[in-house]
Amino acid sequence: MGRRSDRRRVVRLRGGSATARPDTLAVEEPMEIRVGGRQVAVTMRTPGDDFELAAGFLLSEGVIAMPGDVVSARYCVDGRPDNHYNVVDVTLAPHVDVPDFARNFYVSSSCGVCGKDSLDKVRTAARWPVTDDPVRVSAALLAGLPDLLRAGQAVFERTGGLHAAGLFTADGELLCLREDVGRHNAVDKVLGWALGAGRLPLRGCVLQVSGRASFELVQKAWMAGVPVMSAVSAPSTLAVDLATEAGITLAGFVRDGGMNIYAGAARVDLPAPGERSAQV
Amino acid sequence: MGRRSDRRRVVRLRGGSATARPDTLAVEEPMEIRVGGRQVAVTMRTPGDDFELAAGFLLSEGVIAMPGDVVSARYCVDGRPDNHYNVVDVTLAPHVDVPDFARNFYVSSSCGVCGKDSLDKVRTAARWPVTDDPVRVSAALLAGLPDLLRAGQAVFERTGGLHAAGLFTADGELLCLREDVGRHNAVDKVLGWALGAGRLPLRGCVLQVSGRASFELVQKAWMAGVPVMSAVSAPSTLAVDLATEAGITLAGFVRDGGMNIYAGAARVDLPAPGERSAQV
Repeated sequence: MGRRSDRRRVVRLRGGSATARPDTLAVEEPMEIRVGGRQVAVTMRTPGDDFELAAGFLLSEGVIAMPGDVVSARYCVDGRPDNHYNVVDVTLAPHVDVPDFARNFYVSSSCGVCGKDSLDKVRTAARWPVTDDPVRVSAALLAGLPDLLRAGQAVFERTGGLHAAGLFTADGELLCLREDVGRHNAVDKVLGWALGAGRLPLRGCVLQVSGRASFELVQKAWMAGVPVMSAVSAPSTLAVDLATEAGITLAGFVRDGGMNIYAGAARVDLPAPGERSAQV
Repeated sequence: MGRRSDRRRVVRLRGGSATARPDTLAVEEPMEIRVGGRQVAVTMRTPGDDFELAAGFLLSEGVIAMPGDVVSARYCVDGRPDNHYNVVDVTLAPHVDVPDFARNFYVSSSCGVCGKDSLDKVRTAARWPVTDDPVRVSAALLAGLPDLLRAGQAVFERTGGLHAAGLFTADGELLCLREDVGRHNAVDKVLGWALGAGRLPLRGCVLQVSGRASFELVQKAWMAGVPVMSAVSAPSTLAVDLATEAGITLAGFVRDGGMNIYAGAARVDLPAPGERSAQV
């Protein structure tokens, strides 16, 4: 397995003085995902949890949805000895339809794309209804998740340079945390873990991400049946529109004890008027 | 032209009290880039500067390098009336070789990829030597660029949710600033502006980015001949390795008056020992 962090020599400037010394950085390496020996994607990722990353990617793309959809995942070792750990080949069960990723990418639409097309495409692919998930979370609990996420980030601690995604129960129990230089990869690794653990759909769970909430991250949440997603920073318009359409509760700017709830606020237990929670 | 920000109704929690009110968000919409009518990429972007985004993308990918390489760029308007501004069709000059993007994406390597392959690929595509750029920048100037960048971010001011890239002279004069929900897009927009303005290669310039420094961002800098790149957050190992190979000066963690210089430190005028600059 490749290393998650590595050292490089840097010139460090602090308080007007410069010192040369080694510094620990997050590793970024390309990883190729193959299905049945055929390349479907290359992503720049931090090594580690590579099979989960491959499975989570295929789940996010709507190719797989159950543990039984995957027969095996293995590193490709018939090539050059220096890159055994940068190619993951996934063998899918015979019942799984593998889309033509090349044709999928190069769609031939009349003239273009728009936000509504993007929403339609995800709705068509989504397999788990989320709207009916009766889970409730307290605002105080949501406010505390970013600190729990940061506390679990082992590689960030050393490098200061990684995104993270954490899966929590509605009681704040951490189920899975993954780090990556790419925020999409961090989420895919969590979803790949959940798929392998037989936990899909992720009813009753909260997905906390370290950065912003983009359309693609909400798409991933929906593809795994996550009812509540929370981000430390801002969501985009299309992320909010997709969360609204999916019935996903979406919180953003979850920091400094406050937050904005952009969709599905009915699932969040707000503090009663006048009541000032210790955590909120 | 599509809007860069838009409003959504949110529940806002601060200090234990909740209020429902409209909030301003950064717009995220898909944009399809076509070359000669043929789709080559779809990116999720914030509308605005779309022609520059398309040109910067093609520059970053090594397809074009001079203003004369582009004959025209236009919105595709023969389709549905609601998405005229999400498809940009670029017509290239006859002398420009257009790669087969589909085949490029689906490479057939023996068994995989590794960081070294990624470095080799960029080195092969790079057209501007950077190593010999004699520009010098002071550490004090670099330390001040993040504030100059933030001060110029009009949409961030309203939404708190956008990445930015800014092109500066070595004297700290802002040449171009662009914002986007995607940090790659913000850089591509700046590079597309520089291409159109006849400013390539960007000798003597500093590219400041709002987030981390990934491999792909350093690749873009190299493809435009930028000698100095500075990031508010951490670089990855592969970003540092590419900057070292290219001869690009790479600063990271440029915040709170300090910074780390990961490559090309010889271009940076450091404070003399014992001298404590007002800005550093």
